[in-house]
Amino acid sequence: MESLQNSAEEQQYTLYKDNSWPNKQESTNHYKSGVGGFVLVHAGAGYHSESKAKEYRHACKRACQQAVDQLKAGALAVEAVAAALVELEDSPFTNAGMGSNLNLSGEIECDASIMDGKSLHYGAVGAISGIKNPVLVAHRLLSEAQKGKLSAGRIPPCFLVGRGAHDWAISHGVPPCPSEKMATKFSLSAYKRNKRKMELAEKMDTGHNQTKKSRQSSGNENGLECLDTVGAVVVDLQGNVAAAVSSGGLAMKHPGRVGQAAHYGCGCWAENACNMNPYSTAVSTSGCGEHLIRTMLARECSASMQSEDAHQALLEAMQNKFIMEFLWSHTTESMCVGYMSAQDSKAKMCCPNYFVMAQRNMQA
Amino acid sequence: MESLQNSAEEQQYTLYKDNSWPNKQESTNHYKSGVGGFVLVHAGAGYHSESKAKEYRHACKRACQQAVDQLKAGALAVEAVAAALVELEDSPFTNAGMGSNLNLSGEIECDASIMDGKSLHYGAVGAISGIKNPVLVAHRLLSEAQKGKLSAGRIPPCFLVGRGAHDWAISHGVPPCPSEKMATKFSLSAYKRNKRKMELAEKMDTGHNQTKKSRQSSGNENGLECLDTVGAVVVDLQGNVAAAVSSGGLAMKHPGRVGQAAHYGCGCWAENACNMNPYSTAVSTSGCGEHLIRTMLARECSASMQSEDAHQALLEAMQNKFIMEFLWSHTTESMCVGYMSAQDSKAKMCCPNYFVMAQRNMQA
Repeated sequence: MESLQNSAEEQQYTLYKDNSWPNKQESTNHYKSGVGGFVLVHAGAGYHSESKAKEYRHACKRACQQAVDQLKAGALAVEAVAAALVELEDSPFTNAGMGSNLNLSGEIECDASIMDGKSLHYGAVGAISGIKNPVLVAHRLLSEAQKGKLSAGRIPPCFLVGRGAHDWAISHGVPPCPSEKMATKFSLSAYKRNKRKMELAEKMDTGHNQTKKSRQSSGNENGLECLDTVGAVVVDLQGNVAAAVSSGGLAMKHPGRVGQAAHYGCGCWAENACNMNPYSTAVSTSGCGEHLIRTMLARECSASMQSEDAHQALLEAMQNKFIMEFLWSHTTESMCVGYMSAQDSKAKMCCPNYFVMAQRNMQA
Repeated sequence: MESLQNSAEEQQYTLYKDNSWPNKQESTNHYKSGVGGFVLVHAGAGYHSESKAKEYRHACKRACQQAVDQLKAGALAVEAVAAALVELEDSPFTNAGMGSNLNLSGEIECDASIMDGKSLHYGAVGAISGIKNPVLVAHRLLSEAQKGKLSAGRIPPCFLVGRGAHDWAISHGVPPCPSEKMATKFSLSAYKRNKRKMELAEKMDTGHNQTKKSRQSSGNENGLECLDTVGAVVVDLQGNVAAAVSSGGLAMKHPGRVGQAAHYGCGCWAENACNMNPYSTAVSTSGCGEHLIRTMLARECSASMQSEDAHQALLEAMQNKFIMEFLWSHTTESMCVGYMSAQDSKAKMCCPNYFVMAQRNMQA
């Protein structure tokens, strides 16, 4: 697989259902005026507080700017996408890195993954604690794997979890961060509220047998506050694509639970154009991990985007290819996204309905 | 998705390259004479010692017998496949459960997953310690997820890792097993030999910079002894399919490393026939986890088997669909497999070259 030069004929689609998002024509025009180097980020599906809208926008803007600065300095897509994710993780308002959702035990355990469309290499961490930027560990795993085998022919890992992931990160120069510093007043107060809701829901179940019926009855009306996986897709000046995601996981999840953000083909996907695929594609998903794993959504969307009419194919994939029960899991009440090109560094922000962030470039 | 009644028109293929394996015609005849209830197991790809051939065969035979006994008692495919895996895990000669490969720190950390073709539910554990039968935890995760949401609308986990997975297992009645009891004299002596090989390889690298070249030079000639993931596929009396895999992972892996045995779509796949798919398929893979993850081999093979000529489609998938560098990773020096039908309970054993174990039934 070769890196590909962009050309003026390249097309790019930003695929959203929401009307506030630029339509296909505008998006294409925008891209044509800024060929080479592009980043698109999102702050996660879920339920965003209106009062924090400014902070979400700022986090997205900073993430875009970081990636674009890297691209202008000659960085590859995979490096720029990691830089964008670091900004999103560092925001205390997103559910990634600092300020992540707390699990049942009141601890933070993060998932993250990154994929390089040029090499198709992939790195991921699951249920990792005590690391401020899980995406840097995923990126380092990807980089180390590209160096070839370890001593005695051992194959380098692409996916590490838990304590082992933490220790590997430290031994590879990723700085540790005390867990108590990663929780914020927002994440701690959300934990307390969620815990009360759980206790209330369980109290209401008292007297019932813990049957299927009683478990299902405690449904959305008692739903916990949550935000989902953040992510970004990037095209660099050579036309390489990369994608990455990072997540604190579901609020009140069981310790050790790993969601789609660490799952190959589910959280993110990036694939440069090649003989078999006319388009380079990069995808980042956000939403309920268990559902996104079963639908392998990132990879499915990437495949759909190889169709001539990518908009239609993606909508069809969302509506038909997945198990019906998941259809409405694929929307979100609110979402903050931003995009920026390397030539025109003004970030644009909007809040679309769909959480699939996807981008494609035609082969040069 | 409905469970489907088998019919006399059903066909079943056991797909192996090796000549010792029954050819398509024999296999079809065998199946027609024993409609309903079938199990196929393998003891893992890798380098099997000739001196232990008898033990591998016994383990496969016991696994087949357990599954068939369950099927005859009316169990569903997913229950029978878990029973087969327990036998394979309990054998001290396989790289799963008891006697698994030790990791770099001399500890056992296991991966396992299971998929039910009827519900498409899936359960998995990664890097779990102190549990004799990781497949039982994966099975329990699958069963719990089928009961619906937890209190306050929380979604039950489908994938747990590390300490959290261990604690969840204990709280759901899976018995713990002291780690030191899971290591065998074989796994301990293999660890010592592997450690010496690693030290020797690293000594040879001394004086070189730890460059790409020096890392790659310590290749297969110093390769560590290893066996890979074990697995099984089952069809029950109603025609439902299920698949499961279990693995101690690569010898001398980094603690926290999770391989394909815990990855959705990579270790195993099972899907009953439905409107979109004329065939029920069940697949179990074995080999280098990092490569199998990147190829999503179980799911790809399942998709290939929907073709009219499943033999040809599977071979083409193996040869063309995967990234070329992986092609020869998809063979193994030796392998022990067994199969058994519920009507004809004599286990048959052979050692084919390919590690993909796949089965399909035509829709009734």
